[in-house]
Amino acid sequence: MTEQVYVERDGAIATVVLNQPERRNAMNLAMNQGLKRIMDECDADPDLRCVVIRGAGGKAFSAGADISEFEQTRSSKEKAKAFAEITHPAMDAVRDCRHPTIALIEGMCVGGGFGVAALCDFRVCGESSRFGVPVKRLGLVESPDELDMIVRKFGVNAALEILVLGELIGAADALRLGLVTRVAPDDQVAATAYDMAAKIAEGAPLSARWHKKFIYRKLDPTPLTQAEREEGYDCFDTEDFRIGYKAFLAKEKATFVGR
Amino acid sequence: MTEQVYVERDGAIATVVLNQPERRNAMNLAMNQGLKRIMDECDADPDLRCVVIRGAGGKAFSAGADISEFEQTRSSKEKAKAFAEITHPAMDAVRDCRHPTIALIEGMCVGGGFGVAALCDFRVCGESSRFGVPVKRLGLVESPDELDMIVRKFGVNAALEILVLGELIGAADALRLGLVTRVAPDDQVAATAYDMAAKIAEGAPLSARWHKKFIYRKLDPTPLTQAEREEGYDCFDTEDFRIGYKAFLAKEKATFVGR
Amino acid sequence: MTEQVYVERDGAIATVVLNQPERRNAMNLAMNQGLKRIMDECDADPDLRCVVIRGAGGKAFSAGADISEFEQTRSSKEKAKAFAEITHPAMDAVRDCRHPTIALIEGMCVGGGFGVAALCDFRVCGESSRFGVPVKRLGLVESPDELDMIVRKFGVNAALEILVLGELIGAADALRLGLVTRVAPDDQVAATAYDMAAKIAEGAPLSARWHKKFIYRKLDPTPLTQAEREEGYDCFDTEDFRIGYKAFLAKEKATFVGR
Repeated sequence: MTEQVYVERDGAIATVVLNQPERRNAMNLAMNQGLKRIMDECDADPDLRCVVIRGAGGKAFSAGADISEFEQTRSSKEKAKAFAEITHPAMDAVRDCRHPTIALIEGMCVGGGFGVAALCDFRVCGESSRFGVPVKRLGLVESPDELDMIVRKFGVNAALEILVLGELIGAADALRLGLVTRVAPDDQVAATAYDMAAKIAEGAPLSARWHKKFIYRKLDPTPLTQAEREEGYDCFDTEDFRIGYKAFLAKEKATFVGR
Repeated sequence: MTEQVYVERDGAIATVVLNQPERRNAMNLAMNQGLKRIMDECDADPDLRCVVIRGAGGKAFSAGADISEFEQTRSSKEKAKAFAEITHPAMDAVRDCRHPTIALIEGMCVGGGFGVAALCDFRVCGESSRFGVPVKRLGLVESPDELDMIVRKFGVNAALEILVLGELIGAADALRLGLVTRVAPDDQVAATAYDMAAKIAEGAPLSARWHKKFIYRKLDPTPLTQAEREEGYDCFDTEDFRIGYKAFLAKEKATFVGR
Repeated sequence: MTEQVYVERDGAIATVVLNQPERRNAMNLAMNQGLKRIMDECDADPDLRCVVIRGAGGKAFSAGADISEFEQTRSSKEKAKAFAEITHPAMDAVRDCRHPTIALIEGMCVGGGFGVAALCDFRVCGESSRFGVPVKRLGLVESPDELDMIVRKFGVNAALEILVLGELIGAADALRLGLVTRVAPDDQVAATAYDMAAKIAEGAPLSARWHKKFIYRKLDPTPLTQAEREEGYDCFDTEDFRIGYKAFLAKEKATFVGR
């Protein structure tokens, strides 16, 4: 039996697949637990350089929460809180993966699926992709924690459009609003995303991790500590810096080792 | 005698009209007081689902402060501070309205008029609309409180362009900079804005209010309290959630009651 | 012998030139020291109204750090930290100049050169300009302090694209991402930037300085003090406000004196 979330490896690039295509990869409880487990494994793997997250079937990244579980998981406040205790750790595991992450978005990217994509570092979608969190139709809200990255990454105006206006947004508007990094023709989304992954994987992996860490750190308004400032120079003592510097002087392309 | 600021109701949608068209809806002291009173009334009305703010006459949203009052209201620091004690509460009342707000912008949207529009959740303008705060020509500045939402919603770069470069900005550039949500042909601005209002009003009103509240809350860097986190799940105990959930299962359109 | 960084004056507009065109204006230690000294002088000059920073030769704004010094300045953590003690004050001097600043960008704007441009208030580039911080190829990172303004001005998503994806970005994408204020045909970059400088210089200089100060202040999440609020009204007691107000009533163009 194929898992509903699984990971594939191709060299330094992992692909995490949300695999419930007959339900447009809607996320059930078990998938949230699987996503957390797999993202934690990716995070812990020092040999990875990029993690691509995609939906199976080519028709949807993810349609959000699996409605067939709704009565069980979210039909009351208490159930919804218990559900969040499963889904939030999955979201946090996507956000906190130290490796760069790319959401490879074919088709719909809606609700909790949009939430997952928003937590990735890059989003590549197709021309027919559509985005949104139309929970206003259900009388629901995204909790302050769930909408955190939507506001921080895309701004107040885009967040109001996504949640308060609450209509679906096409690829061109998504690009204008900064919701996606690239829009590709529908049949070239995967190629575009993996080309991006390859470019990331060619660079020094420690640089990527430090940059990712330092950039998100700026969302925290507390002043940098001396140790954090100091960490900004640790790269100069790495083997990869010596490799990169030597290659640069020789006008060759560096092959980094991640140390 | 027609009031210089008045409100009209059409079902759950209120329209607040800045009504001094012979002065391009420039805002005098009385209008600021009227705007505050009306926005407070709108905020308090549980049956509203969207508030549209527009200028009368179709030629301007608002040209800013009424210059005919300038000698009286802002010709010295002391006068300007007293003036701000009238205008800031009006601005705060626009910002703090719990219902979603749309600035329906025909023509000019300048100075204090831009300030009002910036405090709305959405801005719909016409192709010939122009935006700006060209107070550099008067030797004036926007106070830190007055420019707060301009920086927070549109970013440092747009704020510098609006205030330090200080030239007027056309509709296409306003869209690129994120200053407006939609640009419509000049004769379709009202239709576009009311279509947006209708879409908002169809959604669950409590969802809209909570989302608005949670999104703006993110501008405050202090950590969420446990009570704020908890509030993120209150929706699941509302009548509207039961209505929305039932309609969803029945594949019908929900008719929300705002409870 | 021509200095590697020098300043020219044309009325109220200063032009700071990064002048090592045979190395695409790569910044060596002496140039960083020169830039700091000149920016401090510009900041202190009350008669200035705008500072333009450009590279000599028309082919590059700046290619970043001067690689010929790399062994000496950045080949270890200790050297890199000592280097930062020279470069950071130069960066801070650009950021803290009280006058509006424009980066006039012809050609490449890369690495530390991009860092300088990001610290300016406005960026005007040519259609063939390219932007980026591709230090991933060297195994290096921008320290948290160095990437501060990139995140704060351009957002998390653009910062991730610049540093983690780490590819060069063309002018059209730079405009879409908000990295530049204007894109001009390559042979009109200087004309466009100086037209912008002239428009800034026509406005009241104190307005520009206060607006710049108040806007950047918003990046600091600490609440405004009463003194800061009060400063928002100091303009009403300036000579320039009386000049501007009088000119406005007379429907004439004001000639400001900067007091």
